[in-house]
Amino acid sequence: MVKSDYTIGILQYIPFFYIIWSDDLLSASETDVVKKTIEQDSTLDPGEKKQLSLWLDRKNPPENVEFKRWKHAITNSKVKLIESDTYPLASLSQRLGSLYCENCDFNDHLKHIEINLGIQPNHYNHLFDVEVIHHKTSNFYDAKVLDGILKGLHTKAVDDFRDFLDQSIFHWDVLRNKEDFRGKVLEQVQLLGNKGYGAMAYGPEYGGTSNMPAYGAIFEHLMFVDGSLAVKFGVQFGLFGGSIQKLGTEKHHTKYLMDTGKARLLGCFAMTETGHGSNVRGIKTTATYEQETDSIIIHTPGPNDNKEYIGNALHSTMASVFAQLIVDGENKGVHAILVPLRDENNSVLEGINIEDNGYKLGLNGVDNGKIWFNQVKVPRENLLDKYGEIGADGRYSSAIKNPNKRFFTMLGTLVGGRICVAKGAVGGAKMALAIAVKHALSRRQFNDSIKIQEDLIMDYPTHQLRLTPAIASAYVYHVTLEEMMKRYSDDSQPDKRKIETQVAGLKSIITWFANDTIQECREACGGKGYLLENRIANLKGDVDIFTTFEGDNNVLLQLAAKGVLSDFKAEFNSAGFTSVLKLLRSQLADKLSTINPVYSNKVDKEHLYNPKFHRHAFNYRTRRLTYTLAMRIRSYIKKGVPSYQAFLKVQTHLLALGKAYSVELAYHVFNEFCSSITDEKHKILLKKLGTLYALNQLYNDAGWYLEQGYFSGTKSKAIRQRVERLSTELRPHIEVLVDGFGIPEHCITAPIAK
Amino acid sequence: MVKSDYTIGILQYIPFFYIIWSDDLLSASETDVVKKTIEQDSTLDPGEKKQLSLWLDRKNPPENVEFKRWKHAITNSKVKLIESDTYPLASLSQRLGSLYCENCDFNDHLKHIEINLGIQPNHYNHLFDVEVIHHKTSNFYDAKVLDGILKGLHTKAVDDFRDFLDQSIFHWDVLRNKEDFRGKVLEQVQLLGNKGYGAMAYGPEYGGTSNMPAYGAIFEHLMFVDGSLAVKFGVQFGLFGGSIQKLGTEKHHTKYLMDTGKARLLGCFAMTETGHGSNVRGIKTTATYEQETDSIIIHTPGPNDNKEYIGNALHSTMASVFAQLIVDGENKGVHAILVPLRDENNSVLEGINIEDNGYKLGLNGVDNGKIWFNQVKVPRENLLDKYGEIGADGRYSSAIKNPNKRFFTMLGTLVGGRICVAKGAVGGAKMALAIAVKHALSRRQFNDSIKIQEDLIMDYPTHQLRLTPAIASAYVYHVTLEEMMKRYSDDSQPDKRKIETQVAGLKSIITWFANDTIQECREACGGKGYLLENRIANLKGDVDIFTTFEGDNNVLLQLAAKGVLSDFKAEFNSAGFTSVLKLLRSQLADKLSTINPVYSNKVDKEHLYNPKFHRHAFNYRTRRLTYTLAMRIRSYIKKGVPSYQAFLKVQTHLLALGKAYSVELAYHVFNEFCSSITDEKHKILLKKLGTLYALNQLYNDAGWYLEQGYFSGTKSKAIRQRVERLSTELRPHIEVLVDGFGIPEHCITAPIAK
Repeated sequence: MVKSDYTIGILQYIPFFYIIWSDDLLSASETDVVKKTIEQDSTLDPGEKKQLSLWLDRKNPPENVEFKRWKHAITNSKVKLIESDTYPLASLSQRLGSLYCENCDFNDHLKHIEINLGIQPNHYNHLFDVEVIHHKTSNFYDAKVLDGILKGLHTKAVDDFRDFLDQSIFHWDVLRNKEDFRGKVLEQVQLLGNKGYGAMAYGPEYGGTSNMPAYGAIFEHLMFVDGSLAVKFGVQFGLFGGSIQKLGTEKHHTKYLMDTGKARLLGCFAMTETGHGSNVRGIKTTATYEQETDSIIIHTPGPNDNKEYIGNALHSTMASVFAQLIVDGENKGVHAILVPLRDENNSVLEGINIEDNGYKLGLNGVDNGKIWFNQVKVPRENLLDKYGEIGADGRYSSAIKNPNKRFFTMLGTLVGGRICVAKGAVGGAKMALAIAVKHALSRRQFNDSIKIQEDLIMDYPTHQLRLTPAIASAYVYHVTLEEMMKRYSDDSQPDKRKIETQVAGLKSIITWFANDTIQECREACGGKGYLLENRIANLKGDVDIFTTFEGDNNVLLQLAAKGVLSDFKAEFNSAGFTSVLKLLRSQLADKLSTINPVYSNKVDKEHLYNPKFHRHAFNYRTRRLTYTLAMRIRSYIKKGVPSYQAFLKVQTHLLALGKAYSVELAYHVFNEFCSSITDEKHKILLKKLGTLYALNQLYNDAGWYLEQGYFSGTKSKAIRQRVERLSTELRPHIEVLVDGFGIPEHCITAPIAK
Repeated sequence: MVKSDYTIGILQYIPFFYIIWSDDLLSASETDVVKKTIEQDSTLDPGEKKQLSLWLDRKNPPENVEFKRWKHAITNSKVKLIESDTYPLASLSQRLGSLYCENCDFNDHLKHIEINLGIQPNHYNHLFDVEVIHHKTSNFYDAKVLDGILKGLHTKAVDDFRDFLDQSIFHWDVLRNKEDFRGKVLEQVQLLGNKGYGAMAYGPEYGGTSNMPAYGAIFEHLMFVDGSLAVKFGVQFGLFGGSIQKLGTEKHHTKYLMDTGKARLLGCFAMTETGHGSNVRGIKTTATYEQETDSIIIHTPGPNDNKEYIGNALHSTMASVFAQLIVDGENKGVHAILVPLRDENNSVLEGINIEDNGYKLGLNGVDNGKIWFNQVKVPRENLLDKYGEIGADGRYSSAIKNPNKRFFTMLGTLVGGRICVAKGAVGGAKMALAIAVKHALSRRQFNDSIKIQEDLIMDYPTHQLRLTPAIASAYVYHVTLEEMMKRYSDDSQPDKRKIETQVAGLKSIITWFANDTIQECREACGGKGYLLENRIANLKGDVDIFTTFEGDNNVLLQLAAKGVLSDFKAEFNSAGFTSVLKLLRSQLADKLSTINPVYSNKVDKEHLYNPKFHRHAFNYRTRRLTYTLAMRIRSYIKKGVPSYQAFLKVQTHLLALGKAYSVELAYHVFNEFCSSITDEKHKILLKKLGTLYALNQLYNDAGWYLEQGYFSGTKSKAIRQRVERLSTELRPHIEVLVDGFGIPEHCITAPIAK
């Protein structure tokens, strides 16, 4: 050991100065943290304080020779850094100091720097002779607290359900043959129904708890067991049962809902046709009322008008069939009718033809099929008639006179399914992230030639960058969807059109996020991620179709964008575009007035981490895209271009607006949620995740913000650096973050996650 | 029919003016096209010319009232637009004119406008009463010519091979059970070997044609049959056979190459270990020379040091095992040794343990496994000793003294495999694109309420944008990889390090491109894309792992970036970074001098379509990223940060450089190739694809260019609009473009592509 020339007071700061200056990101706010610590440190004498302050001058950085002296001071001391210490760097400093003064007090100020700058010693271990003790992750935060925050009001229901899942029937296994797989999933669904989980969203009179949000939480958990199970469960209880609950009336509820919830009556939801997926209004199946027999005749007119991809089609005894309802020769629009498919011996009834869709990229435990109807007669009562009924006199009537509004009201009640799909996607992403993170915390590859052990791949900056923003997004989207589910389930707000717009956009960006994330996790686990036993491959195949079903993402985004446009119309009660444009322009002018060069060049941490900045930027983008979109459409229409064609011409613009609107919404909901958290310690962590989400999104759209002059080049770079920096700062807590998802141990069967 | 007040001369231009002004993109260059046509039109009188010119003034666009008069003139004439005409708009104009003058000549000048502005009448059919005749695509270009251009020198070999594939053993089928699937693929590989396709890259004395590039073309075609077949074929003939050919000497060639090429000797390539994937130099398997018995002992030291994911492991009788060669107690580095795995009864030999890797996300027809060796003894001759041999005296010698250089030389000879992986990825992308395009040309969804028929989804701008740039990229990458294969196979250039850098980067961007494209195609086909019968799902699962095997993409990109850095070192013969930096700075200064506001604001078509602009922009990015990277590394090193840590800190920068370098390279190769095309008509089309590729790439990196001030906001927008515009312009030719890939009819079994 060689003693150093520095005083003890200075010496204990040296590890920090070395690390601070070896990094690129020393900003004003970070300098301040250190400066403040030094000022408040009563153990330092004025000379020491002066020296330390000099070394903090960003305009006059220490010379390289000084830098090397610091390094020698540490290296020569032979003091070792212990990675698993709670404050490894502060503890190193103390031990450095104690070479000179054995009973000196621990300098608590140093801890302050270590926490506030998010210093991560394992990135600087070239400086120290590290004694590696295998603590892969910090325990500063508590995964149970995070999990509790995410569970919110459903804590009891979710905890019970997690325990319930710990039985052999839910153990994951490779089942390649679709019949075996479907058989297993059917058994699982029946058990869940039997235990009351299927009926959760129904009223107590039908075996439920009227708790749709808790149902949603359960649904997400099924993704941890198996994607096929989640989807078949959703089809049986959410789509089939949901159509009875939401579109039917008491007679239907009494007759079918209890059996449906118990999975004693298996049903399917027959909406999509081969020729018509996204364009539901254009479906061809007809339901013609025949007065003589007081019945409705269901018919598939052409060979491509069959129902397609219908989940549960091979097991169902009944279908909720969407068809054009024709009464007295007049088309009343799309309605749902209950149609029996099979008899008590499970034989397909006359006039019905069902074919298996065969093998798919994923979800092979779900029995998707095609259904044709050839003049199938059902009683008039089978019409789900909440929004349109046929009286005993054979007359059609509806409380909603406008057929368009009627159609959208009916569809609007089914939006819960879309929220569930998005929740399932988030569940899949969480599972993949948990596996990839746990793998990255045990897998080592490459090393510095002087070290014996290779580095954990989680310690690579690129690896942090590919996983950490995705973890932040998973938190944000979880919270956003919980809020949407709450709003959707709020019966005091019967008009669901606003929610429909919001969910259309959110479902799109979230299912894409989930697919990208799962793919990233697959690649992050290398060849191991490709093996089915490690679960990510199946998640990939299962979640893939979430971008298409319950509405194709590209179609939904256009729906969301059109919703934004008509929101404006409604908001200002104007017949045409002109007043909307005027209002938008004046709002933008307000926004723009703040975009002076000072603002677009602001790069300090306080500003970049400030939710006000994020909100302003997101809102600016949504408004600006809305304004320019409206301008473009108006100009086409002025030229006599019909509006259908005009909307075609701005299709890519619509997609951009739909995404921008959804990101703004998600961030807004998450931010509000954070304010309500009472645990101050974990609130800080969640806010940091929100910041990472916001900056990452802004960075993804940096090209647009730069185009608009909203960001300067310097600001865009600073945002990118902050995303990287935050990803690294969160490294010590990354396992706690994925454990916070609360995925039960017994569901994480992947060998690489052990 | 109501006659118009316009003169005949003016009338015939009106459909064009209507369309031109209804679009946003009328630029100076386009105005010029029309202006020129008018000037050269001798049928017009000066008054008519003047009037028409007035309507071309972009600063003074025609009033909306004029615009509506044009519309009426066309609508009232009752003349119909026939979509399937070769020049639909010019023909409409002529028929409009002939209402007044029956025997007037066809005005050929109008065709000129139609071609040059890429006017696509189906986008403007709201204007005309369209008589739809079902020609989904134009026949202006010829798919056979495009295919011929892509096949190049391999036309004969490829055509024969396509015919050969038309037999039942190659018909695609769903095989879920891995044993059945593997059995079928093994048979296919044996047939290919038997017919001489396996040996193509070997010399004639071993049954081949010494034609590695043709072998590569064949390999790509196997992706059209099945991904598992392509990979198993590659393992047997390319990796196992290739290691014998490239790392072995004549004794090995004579003994094994003929049997390997015929697939009578089945072998595997045992490099990767569970603990070591990307870091080959760190593998743990040992090959210890034992002088007493003149043999080499192969041994797996620890439980995680087994060979992993080894393709063909369950069928092979021999393996080419990579291990640390230890001679006389000294580690000579990684070498390959031939090790028998099974006896003539197919029983695994003593000391060897082989386990099945089980089911995977894709490639389930390939038998991947793990292999452990327990002190397995093989004769000294089994060392593949081209780059390092053990003499009869037990002494090790090598012509390459530097062990590092020796290692990289050995690996360099195997780069052909990496090119094949990228070629396979392009093949998968082509196949998915062909299916998605054919589906989009028959699938209709949504419509204008006044039309009976719904629109083809290929006619949606968003659909064009998601598929067309990917088609352009497939052309660019096909040509790039052909060139790489040519360079790699050029024995007059034994130093493959440059190619290795290039291929490392290209393999990464191309396999990612293929995955993104296949995913986009899956989504573009909706639920149909999810069904295995439509092939895209399997392509997705198979190509997925291409981002990982033959080198993880993130690792390879860093390799490429480091290659770029050391290229600079080598180029200027300098020991350190300083002179490199100086040179880079002066080069950048040259580039920067042209980036005055005029340049960064240039948005006219001539400029944006000019390859000089693309080259300049790509080169600027590569150089700038190299310079800033070198600067950052130097500054770390100056502070005493060891270079391993310094490179960790710039990891994301390395990835950006690796990608930028590869994109520049691909564009450069494609551009050179286009210049050599003799068919002038199709050359124009291919150049347009190159332009779309370039603009699409530049748009993807627009954020960076904006940050640098290289693009103004206006320019970035103009580039985006051009990408959309080109995608639409190519719409009439899109089926010809995918047919140009030359995928045999008998391979496109997807029902949705029929």
